[in-house]
Amino acid sequence: MAWVKFVREDIEIEVEDGISVLEAEIQAGLRPDAPCGGLGKCGKCLVKINGEVVKACQIRIGEGETCVVETLDRAGNEKILTDGFNREVVFEPGLRMAQVELEKAKTGEKRSDWQRLLDTLAETDVEVEPGQMEVDLKLAGELYGMRRDSEEWYVIYSRRRILEMRKEAGRRCLAAFDIGTTTIAGYLLDGADGRTLAVESRMNPQAQYGADVIMRANYALEHGTEALSMCVRKAVNEMLGSLAEDAGIRREDVFQVCVVGNTCMHHLFLGISPASLVHAPYTPAVSERLVLNAGDYGLAVQKRAELIMLSDIAGYVGADTCGCLLAIRQDQQEEISLMIDIGTNGEMVLGNRERMVTCSTAAGPAFEGAKIECGMRGAAGAVDHVKYEDGKWNYTTVGNKPAVGLCGSGLIDLVAGLLDAGMLDENGVLRSGQEKQGVFILVPPERGGNERGVYLTQKDLGEVQLAKAAIAAGIQMLMERLGITEDDICSVYIAGAFGNYMDPVSAGKIGLLPATLVKKVKPVGNAAGEGAKIALVNEKEMLEMDELVRKIEFVELAASADFQDHFIDELGFETGE
Amino acid sequence: MAWVKFVREDIEIEVEDGISVLEAEIQAGLRPDAPCGGLGKCGKCLVKINGEVVKACQIRIGEGETCVVETLDRAGNEKILTDGFNREVVFEPGLRMAQVELEKAKTGEKRSDWQRLLDTLAETDVEVEPGQMEVDLKLAGELYGMRRDSEEWYVIYSRRRILEMRKEAGRRCLAAFDIGTTTIAGYLLDGADGRTLAVESRMNPQAQYGADVIMRANYALEHGTEALSMCVRKAVNEMLGSLAEDAGIRREDVFQVCVVGNTCMHHLFLGISPASLVHAPYTPAVSERLVLNAGDYGLAVQKRAELIMLSDIAGYVGADTCGCLLAIRQDQQEEISLMIDIGTNGEMVLGNRERMVTCSTAAGPAFEGAKIECGMRGAAGAVDHVKYEDGKWNYTTVGNKPAVGLCGSGLIDLVAGLLDAGMLDENGVLRSGQEKQGVFILVPPERGGNERGVYLTQKDLGEVQLAKAAIAAGIQMLMERLGITEDDICSVYIAGAFGNYMDPVSAGKIGLLPATLVKKVKPVGNAAGEGAKIALVNEKEMLEMDELVRKIEFVELAASADFQDHFIDELGFETGE
Repeated sequence: MAWVKFVREDIEIEVEDGISVLEAEIQAGLRPDAPCGGLGKCGKCLVKINGEVVKACQIRIGEGETCVVETLDRAGNEKILTDGFNREVVFEPGLRMAQVELEKAKTGEKRSDWQRLLDTLAETDVEVEPGQMEVDLKLAGELYGMRRDSEEWYVIYSRRRILEMRKEAGRRCLAAFDIGTTTIAGYLLDGADGRTLAVESRMNPQAQYGADVIMRANYALEHGTEALSMCVRKAVNEMLGSLAEDAGIRREDVFQVCVVGNTCMHHLFLGISPASLVHAPYTPAVSERLVLNAGDYGLAVQKRAELIMLSDIAGYVGADTCGCLLAIRQDQQEEISLMIDIGTNGEMVLGNRERMVTCSTAAGPAFEGAKIECGMRGAAGAVDHVKYEDGKWNYTTVGNKPAVGLCGSGLIDLVAGLLDAGMLDENGVLRSGQEKQGVFILVPPERGGNERGVYLTQKDLGEVQLAKAAIAAGIQMLMERLGITEDDICSVYIAGAFGNYMDPVSAGKIGLLPATLVKKVKPVGNAAGEGAKIALVNEKEMLEMDELVRKIEFVELAASADFQDHFIDELGFETGE
Repeated sequence: MAWVKFVREDIEIEVEDGISVLEAEIQAGLRPDAPCGGLGKCGKCLVKINGEVVKACQIRIGEGETCVVETLDRAGNEKILTDGFNREVVFEPGLRMAQVELEKAKTGEKRSDWQRLLDTLAETDVEVEPGQMEVDLKLAGELYGMRRDSEEWYVIYSRRRILEMRKEAGRRCLAAFDIGTTTIAGYLLDGADGRTLAVESRMNPQAQYGADVIMRANYALEHGTEALSMCVRKAVNEMLGSLAEDAGIRREDVFQVCVVGNTCMHHLFLGISPASLVHAPYTPAVSERLVLNAGDYGLAVQKRAELIMLSDIAGYVGADTCGCLLAIRQDQQEEISLMIDIGTNGEMVLGNRERMVTCSTAAGPAFEGAKIECGMRGAAGAVDHVKYEDGKWNYTTVGNKPAVGLCGSGLIDLVAGLLDAGMLDENGVLRSGQEKQGVFILVPPERGGNERGVYLTQKDLGEVQLAKAAIAAGIQMLMERLGITEDDICSVYIAGAFGNYMDPVSAGKIGLLPATLVKKVKPVGNAAGEGAKIALVNEKEMLEMDELVRKIEFVELAASADFQDHFIDELGFETGE
């Protein structure tokens, strides 16, 4: 028999001798953290014994011994981020800082200055594997002189390289970007605590080469990728400047930049031709997560800063979806959930911790306001909500400005209202009785904010039908792949700006979502951008994504007869007649 | 019961059913190669069954089955290189070529073009680990167009990157360099079969900044490393040009360059300050094996070619010693052996497969002809052998030219001869009776090839004593560290040009080597350069060196009182009086 005394918890237990301190902690109900299962590898189960920090799993308790253990309150030290995130995210960033002492080599020392630095760092941070670190010849050559200058240095480093050594702790920041086809969203985070310091969004300047992905890809095939690459890199670099200015930091304080975007945005940012994306069978040229030199991609930040490109998943399921997965982590949940990111394409993911499937539907940009005669993005004056009540049409606009057009949420509300009003037949044809044949006028010119007013045409309705049928059919396909029904789905996460404003009831009414899912809708905002932030503040989650991206099953719709059948079934409306 | 028929060997055996084909091969006495022990990991036990190549360890033999197995004659295919090597070296180079088919992606394919290429390559070569390969964004972006051009491509690749894809097999070459303080030796090898295609050596142009390592290091500390780096890189690049011309290949056919040299040459080639090398405790700034881009170091070869810098071992035990270890592989032998590479420093390694120790003695450049009044390198007219027989002095010269000086082998022969002739006392003082006090004239001016003749001064004798005492004391220190005596040493490998010409009997007589080791001497020529070649033609051996370099024990001499004692003991001569 032996005894273990946990001083901080004031618990003393009797144990069999020979067991490890980790086992004793478990027996005492302390729930220690030991992801490696006590193999001595992860270094998470640190405790203090006789004033020394040791791995609990590696210390065995001798016969008759009373082992006095001071647990290191990991839970207490664990920083949980909530601000700016839809869920709790543990702050364990890939960018780290440690203070090291550059000791003079002892006589008989065989290791290089570089190796000694890495070994010293590994002593401070058990997760540093010296063999995995890129050798920085320039820094290695400077170490001798640096040690003569000062013994104490702050090292800022990532899993694969030392980014900076300096005498003052200083600032260290992280930047995340979601490069959308239309909009680029940028976030600046404090690398020391994960706080969001500044946020900015601006239009993607590639718009001058084409409004959508296909037009830009075609431009790139004809004229090369350079113009498209350069302009988006420049925009991101400018945003880094203004984010830094907003936050009162220097550009050189940014050590990691994480970028997500759809596959075409991803390829163009990297300067890779989108040829493989626009020709069947639509595969990415490259898709694995990349860690590059930010400076090589036009980003003027710290000179050794890393550019992290999250993984693309398939030809039209890009790194932005990888970001959404990170933001929601369906793969960690028991319950089956559906995630839909509605943009030009509707990427969706269905599943739970057992199995995940994904697809991309060419939904078209109707919900982004494109191809709709009075369509617009959710800017000032956009009709964002419409309701047909008691024979009257009520609507609201963004910013309460005079109505100038219809954004996505207004569009589906309007179509739902037309169905409520009995003004659409099951094929989506506007019943006669309108002021103008084939047009429903919501806001006449005299009451609108422009000369046109706001109306919906028969052709617009066709676009809405194509878009909603594509998404609805995609959902059917994913459910079939998993062999489940709507009832098995517990949550529906709608990502993107549209998702934030969309009325789920309207979405159900027009058949964008199965009616039974309407109550399960949870808007999650710009989940792609949030995922890019999470990749920076919790490295483990980022690495888990690499595995998930490999495992997730891709359901190809374009060439599927089943999808065509579902699509045609979904084109019409339930009119209740 | 089941039966296995090995068609090529014409052997049929009865086996228990359920065993693997690998086990059946063992039972049949075929000695299959299965380094992973049948875990299905190494892919070395490939056999052909029903026309398909499969891993023998993964195929189980069904009950009552007769399994027909065609072994792939690995031993027969194994190419052993002997030409240009002191020992047999198996040709298994790190630079590989495979022919792959760029297949069109199937519908529903999720992998990127790049991943499909790596997976295809991994099917062809079981040692390729797609996850370990550097992503080449440029090449990844070209794959789509390449497949439209042709389906069949030759891929030239290493463990970490794809170097080239082309439609013709073409040439692929390897280059090895030993950058000595005085001489650079270069070798061009055929990457397809390991043949040596061309050899060249030239003077190290850094000589203009100082004759020895210390002078050059001091120059670098004062003026920066750039001039020293640039001139040696330029020389290596020029040598690449003339080696290519000699062999009738193009520079662009060179895909890997391996460089060894002492730590100072290593650092200067890389552009790293030697500051840490020249100040106590003399540690390298960086020492691990490096794989770099050849183009970044001024080498105009194939654009993605790799520059491999073998590991330095300790501050004054450089990558050249790592090369010697590779050439000799003392670490694979049961017998204990001693390797000495005699140059300005005498680096030595003692040990066997159990344990290896190394040290570096500041022997000085006497054996290279420096600091000796009539000293010279082993060029035409150098006295390379001297014998005192029947009261007469006989000598030979390099190229049978009139004598102009003494090279290292001639120098130790001469000192040994003086001892034979009873003309030296035990303190190394020339006994009187010479024509000129304190000088022994071997070749009078009238018979020499120059106006000076060839002679040895008392001061020269002092230099020889310092050099031989340093080496002899180093040997003592290594033996003490291992707890062995001279009798335990089975072989003494002498590396370097001096070692090739040195008469071991003279070396024993002057006390450079313990007398009992004289008969065990085996000259191994430029073992450092040979090791650089071996690193290129057998990757496994190169990787094994990384492990050995970590394990080898470094014995520091400079600050050791024991070394000082041995050194003083070894300064004198055994005169037999």
